[in-house]
Amino acid sequence: METKYQKLSSELKRLNSLAGILGHLGWDMQSMLPKGAFSSRQNQMTNLTCILHEQSTDEELGQLIYELFDEGQSQFNQYQWRNILLAKQNFEDSIKIPSELIKRRAQISGLGFQKWLEAKENNSYKIFAPLLQQYIDISRECSHHLDPEKHPYDVCLDSFEKGFSSKDIDLIFLELKSGLSKIYSKIQSSQKSIKTLPKGKFDISKQIQLIDEIATTLGFDKNIGRIDTSSHPFTGGGHNTDVRMTTRYDENDLSSALLSIIHETGHAIYEQGRMTDQYQDTPVSMALGMVIHESQSLLLERRVGQGEQFINYCFPVIKKYFPEQFEGWTNHDYYLAINKVGPSELRVDSDEITYPLHIILRYELEKELFNHVIKVEDLNEAWNEKSRLLLGFTPKSESSGVLQDAHWGDGCFGYFPVYTLGAMAGSQMYDICLKENPKLEANFKNGDFSEIKTWLNQKVHLKGQLKSAKELIQELTNSSIDVNSYLNYLDNKYQSVYEY
Amino acid sequence: METKYQKLSSELKRLNSLAGILGHLGWDMQSMLPKGAFSSRQNQMTNLTCILHEQSTDEELGQLIYELFDEGQSQFNQYQWRNILLAKQNFEDSIKIPSELIKRRAQISGLGFQKWLEAKENNSYKIFAPLLQQYIDISRECSHHLDPEKHPYDVCLDSFEKGFSSKDIDLIFLELKSGLSKIYSKIQSSQKSIKTLPKGKFDISKQIQLIDEIATTLGFDKNIGRIDTSSHPFTGGGHNTDVRMTTRYDENDLSSALLSIIHETGHAIYEQGRMTDQYQDTPVSMALGMVIHESQSLLLERRVGQGEQFINYCFPVIKKYFPEQFEGWTNHDYYLAINKVGPSELRVDSDEITYPLHIILRYELEKELFNHVIKVEDLNEAWNEKSRLLLGFTPKSESSGVLQDAHWGDGCFGYFPVYTLGAMAGSQMYDICLKENPKLEANFKNGDFSEIKTWLNQKVHLKGQLKSAKELIQELTNSSIDVNSYLNYLDNKYQSVYEY
Repeated sequence: METKYQKLSSELKRLNSLAGILGHLGWDMQSMLPKGAFSSRQNQMTNLTCILHEQSTDEELGQLIYELFDEGQSQFNQYQWRNILLAKQNFEDSIKIPSELIKRRAQISGLGFQKWLEAKENNSYKIFAPLLQQYIDISRECSHHLDPEKHPYDVCLDSFEKGFSSKDIDLIFLELKSGLSKIYSKIQSSQKSIKTLPKGKFDISKQIQLIDEIATTLGFDKNIGRIDTSSHPFTGGGHNTDVRMTTRYDENDLSSALLSIIHETGHAIYEQGRMTDQYQDTPVSMALGMVIHESQSLLLERRVGQGEQFINYCFPVIKKYFPEQFEGWTNHDYYLAINKVGPSELRVDSDEITYPLHIILRYELEKELFNHVIKVEDLNEAWNEKSRLLLGFTPKSESSGVLQDAHWGDGCFGYFPVYTLGAMAGSQMYDICLKENPKLEANFKNGDFSEIKTWLNQKVHLKGQLKSAKELIQELTNSSIDVNSYLNYLDNKYQSVYEY
Repeated sequence: METKYQKLSSELKRLNSLAGILGHLGWDMQSMLPKGAFSSRQNQMTNLTCILHEQSTDEELGQLIYELFDEGQSQFNQYQWRNILLAKQNFEDSIKIPSELIKRRAQISGLGFQKWLEAKENNSYKIFAPLLQQYIDISRECSHHLDPEKHPYDVCLDSFEKGFSSKDIDLIFLELKSGLSKIYSKIQSSQKSIKTLPKGKFDISKQIQLIDEIATTLGFDKNIGRIDTSSHPFTGGGHNTDVRMTTRYDENDLSSALLSIIHETGHAIYEQGRMTDQYQDTPVSMALGMVIHESQSLLLERRVGQGEQFINYCFPVIKKYFPEQFEGWTNHDYYLAINKVGPSELRVDSDEITYPLHIILRYELEKELFNHVIKVEDLNEAWNEKSRLLLGFTPKSESSGVLQDAHWGDGCFGYFPVYTLGAMAGSQMYDICLKENPKLEANFKNGDFSEIKTWLNQKVHLKGQLKSAKELIQELTNSSIDVNSYLNYLDNKYQSVYEY
């Protein structure tokens, strides 16, 4: 006889599989879908989204959840109880949003991505602007339904990571901006000459092989995942046994695909490392909010991938594929070059020091849009202006400026801050991991990343949603997100790179 | 105010978009899915199949259909009326099958394909046999629900093309087998020496480019379609604006990928050529049964792709990619070589004369399985025995024998006869098209296939399901499927090839 909890668990797994289909369709839309099929895909995703919302707000499901909740925590183990709480929270959030709005949002979402892609390809923000306006309107509307007392942008922030309000973020970013500007000044005054990475021709089929080798060595399991190409790198897919990451290739620039695949591998290893026991596919097994997700990708990209011991492993692999392009280069030359600091048009290609400025730019613009300080039609000019102020340049084109990120194309606001919060959390985690595993980095140079993968699997991935992001960071690092510790790491590292 | 008909039309379109998602997931399963993800994909497809069945048998939908049906034909145009009839038929079929059985069938289906793939890779039929038994049992069970009066195998035949019973097919195949054996004898007694296609190394990345060029020249529209790789070539996808065909590449054999892509292009052009007006996504716009579908693919593969004028266009393209492999070859050499007749292990690689024998082999085995004449556990031996009798050889391996086709791996019985019925119908259509367009073949050599594409678009693709397959064949060719006309075509062609 099935218990009530088992009944809930089965239903949550079933709903999760429908959400997985949506995840899969989203991956396909960004990596495979023929251009002429956007409209049919939009219909498919809209119809399935409506079914998922309808079934997630089913009265019988709600009743079951409340009955289990009323039985009380003592009747369940911690995983079961957490599932009940998470199901309750999701049910309560879902019923707040009318199904008509769910449908409208899904309809706009498919169209918006298509328009963003078209705008980017045609270097014309005005193609996308009307959709951006619709996205913002609908986002406000959803926020109002979810919590009419809260500022709509704070509700957006909540949707990616609960517990970090715009007030918290303002404080963190203020401190960070000032600390970074000091480090940046020291770098700029340094006399150290660092080679520039070669802009030679890097055959794409060889890049694909290289990326594959690096990602699998880092721990990406192709038996339960794939690597493909898309306009904007991302990690998606429909299940933790079907994790699909993408990158894009530039014949003139190897580091673009390389660093982005290391980043995505961090996300992918998180997904692949989640629970596979009886709690698989239930809420407690899911990844925590996006701060923790980005902590995993940025830890891998920045602390591992741009560290000297990783380069001692990775650069010989690079030279195996591209010997001519790197003739005369030593590992240390490459290490310095990959850590060279300087303004970059694209956020995803920028260095550790200027990257947070890209984030602050987007975060401030989003707040201004949601506070009616700027209008959607003026966003391109506002972007360029802020880029001059924060980064010191005006983007060469709209495609490499206001249109560069897929996030707004997806109607997703309040995401950007999680990159920088995640970078800080990830860096703190890495310091702890290093303390607990003194041979960690020494093993990197032999291509052995098992210690860090195991550590992250056990400390983060398998913990699922048992705790909140803030609790997990506190538990692991004995601290909340700490700007000073992050600035210290950066200062130490770039002092050694730039010998200032 | 929405009319009742509009309400039905919207609901049918919505259900069609869910079926489209299933089509897409099936394509992904065969072409992209990581091995470790089969089980999660199976869950996704099972859950969505159950939702689709539940919503297709919804009482309210049934009531709406009957109300519209009761209004009578005179109230609607022919497209609308056909939609009402097709919706009624689908509703009546769907409610006959219990949802529990739908779920069970979907569950087995995902697992079965995985086991077939594993069996094929390991050259071991016994890995797949238990699943094949389950497939047959469940197929019988479904047949019994659909029509307890009919032989279960005839119900299977109906599911791919209504109107051709096993009695009809027995008669057609008897006549065909005898006619083919006469032609085959003449060919075997011919002294004509025909070159064998080179088994040189054909670089796969070049094959991919070649296939792309040929398929798009034939009329495949990549704006609403894709070409990928899978273990067994097929055409699938989720919509007529998202048609995905696949092939597989063999470094030693160019014709394998080439002929199969021409075949799939026939299917793909059918799908891409379906209605895009207000009837798009409603039942009347869908492709007719599989006899007509295969008539399109085999017309293109056999009558166009293996014809001399097509070779006059295609062979120079082949030589552009592979000049060394074909040094000294003329167009006519290639034409003869591609039409060389002889036993082939694989159905998909076999020539026009022995191909139907492959079909008859499978058809007879399926009937024997469904009639309990042979047991699933003895199928491999039965296959080998029948192969000796019909084709004159025993397959080298189980992978290239009983496991070669994906159909049984998909739990699909009663499909094979439609290939040969389709080949005959397609050949009859081609003769008519040629009569109506005297310059048709002369234009082929310039790479101009617009006439045939337009003819098929107008006469077949845009006709959707307005008529039955039998009616359409009669209307287009002024005849039913005619074995003699097919044998005449073959005799004339191979007389000229083999100069017998």
